[in-house]
Amino acid sequence: MDREQFRTAAHAAVDEIINYFEGLPSQRVLPTVEPGYLRPLIPENPPEQPEEWSQIQADIEEKIKPGLTHWQSPNFMAFFPAGVTYPSILGEMYSAAFTAPAFNWLCSPACTELETIVMDWLAKALALPECFLSTSENRGGGVIQVTASDTVATMMIAARERRVTEQVVAEGLKPDTVEYEDRMMELRPRLVALASNQAHSSTAKGSLLAGTRFRSVTARLEDNLEMTAAGLREVLEQCDKDGLTPYFITLGFGTTNTCAVDRFAEIKAVLREKPHWQRIWVHIDAAYAGAALVADEWQYIAKDFAEGVDSFNLNMHKWLLVNFDASCLFVRNRYDLTNALDITPAYLRNEYSDSGKVTDYRNWSMSLGRRFRALKIWFVMRSYGLTGMKDYIRKTIGIGEVFADLIRSRPDMFELITEPAFALTVFRIKSPKAAVTEGASVLQPDEASNALTKEVYELINSRGEIFITSTVIAGVYVIRVVSANPAAEEKYIRRAFEILVQTTEEVLQRE
Amino acid sequence: MDREQFRTAAHAAVDEIINYFEGLPSQRVLPTVEPGYLRPLIPENPPEQPEEWSQIQADIEEKIKPGLTHWQSPNFMAFFPAGVTYPSILGEMYSAAFTAPAFNWLCSPACTELETIVMDWLAKALALPECFLSTSENRGGGVIQVTASDTVATMMIAARERRVTEQVVAEGLKPDTVEYEDRMMELRPRLVALASNQAHSSTAKGSLLAGTRFRSVTARLEDNLEMTAAGLREVLEQCDKDGLTPYFITLGFGTTNTCAVDRFAEIKAVLREKPHWQRIWVHIDAAYAGAALVADEWQYIAKDFAEGVDSFNLNMHKWLLVNFDASCLFVRNRYDLTNALDITPAYLRNEYSDSGKVTDYRNWSMSLGRRFRALKIWFVMRSYGLTGMKDYIRKTIGIGEVFADLIRSRPDMFELITEPAFALTVFRIKSPKAAVTEGASVLQPDEASNALTKEVYELINSRGEIFITSTVIAGVYVIRVVSANPAAEEKYIRRAFEILVQTTEEVLQRE
Repeated sequence: MDREQFRTAAHAAVDEIINYFEGLPSQRVLPTVEPGYLRPLIPENPPEQPEEWSQIQADIEEKIKPGLTHWQSPNFMAFFPAGVTYPSILGEMYSAAFTAPAFNWLCSPACTELETIVMDWLAKALALPECFLSTSENRGGGVIQVTASDTVATMMIAARERRVTEQVVAEGLKPDTVEYEDRMMELRPRLVALASNQAHSSTAKGSLLAGTRFRSVTARLEDNLEMTAAGLREVLEQCDKDGLTPYFITLGFGTTNTCAVDRFAEIKAVLREKPHWQRIWVHIDAAYAGAALVADEWQYIAKDFAEGVDSFNLNMHKWLLVNFDASCLFVRNRYDLTNALDITPAYLRNEYSDSGKVTDYRNWSMSLGRRFRALKIWFVMRSYGLTGMKDYIRKTIGIGEVFADLIRSRPDMFELITEPAFALTVFRIKSPKAAVTEGASVLQPDEASNALTKEVYELINSRGEIFITSTVIAGVYVIRVVSANPAAEEKYIRRAFEILVQTTEEVLQRE
Repeated sequence: MDREQFRTAAHAAVDEIINYFEGLPSQRVLPTVEPGYLRPLIPENPPEQPEEWSQIQADIEEKIKPGLTHWQSPNFMAFFPAGVTYPSILGEMYSAAFTAPAFNWLCSPACTELETIVMDWLAKALALPECFLSTSENRGGGVIQVTASDTVATMMIAARERRVTEQVVAEGLKPDTVEYEDRMMELRPRLVALASNQAHSSTAKGSLLAGTRFRSVTARLEDNLEMTAAGLREVLEQCDKDGLTPYFITLGFGTTNTCAVDRFAEIKAVLREKPHWQRIWVHIDAAYAGAALVADEWQYIAKDFAEGVDSFNLNMHKWLLVNFDASCLFVRNRYDLTNALDITPAYLRNEYSDSGKVTDYRNWSMSLGRRFRALKIWFVMRSYGLTGMKDYIRKTIGIGEVFADLIRSRPDMFELITEPAFALTVFRIKSPKAAVTEGASVLQPDEASNALTKEVYELINSRGEIFITSTVIAGVYVIRVVSANPAAEEKYIRRAFEILVQTTEEVLQRE
């Protein structure tokens, strides 16, 4: 493909991308394809000879688009959003053109330095405490990772190494000796990572990756599914009894099921109760809901992170207008990361890296190479401005409130399971056959309602006009609705409510 | 940014990207900026109000481009290449538009299915044995990862879990019991990962991430820096003596320093010698040189992978025309991966995932979400065809041979340290003051030559017309030159040779 062929193809692609977005509201959000649909449409072998772009482009229309789940549709109300915006696409275009696996400063100074700067911008936009800025005295700083899952695994590995190294050094052992290695190995198997049973599965997976144990703290429905001091203390004390060493805890700022916010202040107070609990690495998983911090009215939450928090993670690629991947991690002490991850061979050394004046981001993550993702964040923050970002967060939270109010308007049909939060509403459908539980302070599991909710949920998704998610919380089958991608509008959430009511009525009539 | 503003901006961006590539040959490959150059050029805080694209675009020209290291310049001859091509950029554009963190099949069927298909295409293009195809009876398959570093760490974690699980199950312990967990924890600390001392640092780093030990096998200069049967057996026997359990080995197909190829056949024979050695996970790191397999004359190498190899990794984003990130991993048994990495919570379950008919790639890697990277691979393989890919590999190897011949033409000034391979030439500059070593079969370290080579190397890079890498091998300071990015041409490598000769003469005259 020569320069002029590319110019023509890329100009056309830009127009097609615009048309794609414009066409989304009138399309099914879920595709109708069955597993294995694509294989028969694609030749078994790669072509021997070059093909024209026109052939490839036609296949995007005919073979790829019919198999896409449209996360950018305003009718996508499942999971959490994964938005994309026009300035973010421009960022991807320039990033591809400037391709450089910028593993150290010299391998593309602009790539490294812009990342440091935009992470500081973001920390300020979120009103994160000073300690997370690259300019802080405590050597904090931000870095862009791929996803919240590899981020939490990386934090656990850093926490694991910090904990066992502290111990081994305190025992007077010397690095690079057999005794040192043996003792490190002896200590690791006692380590336990913690998170609430409402935390995203990435903490349990991260623990498995790090080769440590995992224990979950029960968050109860009567506490709005938030982790509490009492719940945590019980698990910590059990670990003490079992001779295990808690070394890491994920605290949720917007859990996956219900967007619960763990009780940071009281949890931090528990962690101060014993010296060895004070050494636990505290990680805030704000993957989705952390985006709300750009709006002033939520920034009081971030004040809790000024002390006693080691790392904070927000995925801009969920609810903050930058497309996947833009998982933004902030650490209080970057040396915790580099001490664990830096293995510098000769061929990666240069006068700048050796000087200590530059940041070599390869030592901040598991991957050596990295894409130039700071560009898209920079483009988005400038194109929207703080004002535009706040407006977007407030608008989508408002849409969520409209939906929650609609759910509340039909107490005969729907029950909220927890308070709606951050544009997410979680509810179940009441079965007329449900046993009535008197005096219960929270929703009780009920087989009839579970079955009805599941049936309505599956019927709605099978029709594909909107896409929603279900989950099971404390034995209660529930539906989650969140409409917070850049295309979200009130009219679509009102339509979703209509679909819910109509489908429920339809299912009830069948019975 | 509305639709029309995006159209205008993106069309202009396409033109600017073309101009950027066209301008590269006449520019310095390395920027002249000093650490910290960017901070004073960027406002301290993100803007309150939205900014126009014209302002942002101007900053790309004025503030970002001067700080880029130009990996796409034909004068970039450092490390290994990280190329980008026009069809690959089109892939990034569509991938951004179709943004979906496609962690399971339903979250974008096209994204998942195209990945399976293009990985099969690639396996065929490389003539990998049948066992690595998704359609193989042994349940093999390919997956796109971010980099070779997170790939090797993921393989080590899968290998670690396979090894300890086999043992614990053989001992009759039941999953989800305290005894099972304790025994798993007891076994892991004895595990050792192996690689040659010429392997990329990612194996040592991966071992650290996985929390296991690492031992290196010495590859000797007299063996062209290839790992041999004898070298490996010595380390395996030492592990046996030390009561350690080797569970993983990385074999290099194109090592970082010199593109050495470890002696697969004889190494596999060693691994067959003892039952517990047969259980070692064998990983082929072909991150760079594996690309050569598209050309028929190299495909004999892949025959060695038909048995006794668990995983094979090639970064298309190095030498195969697809931009970063496109790290292609093939495994012989995908259950080895999913057994280690699958933690499926309720909210990720759906009728398709439960049916076993679909691939949920989240269980093939550490990250949950993933980009739609199959598009760019598909676009590139079709735009080039196998013919175009072979031509490109042969052309760049040819350029490397031209350079190696030039080095050989000046035995008074240069010495090759190993045989040139896969477009990479590694050599040192001979000092007239070097002590003459009679009868040595390989180059001997020599302080005068080391100092001279280092001085010439640093002077060349400081001038920035070309960018090359140095390293230290067996005490010998050497220069590595590889010109294999998509813009590579013979005239640039000839110019690089001139620069080397002139700079050497200049340095020698100074003394």
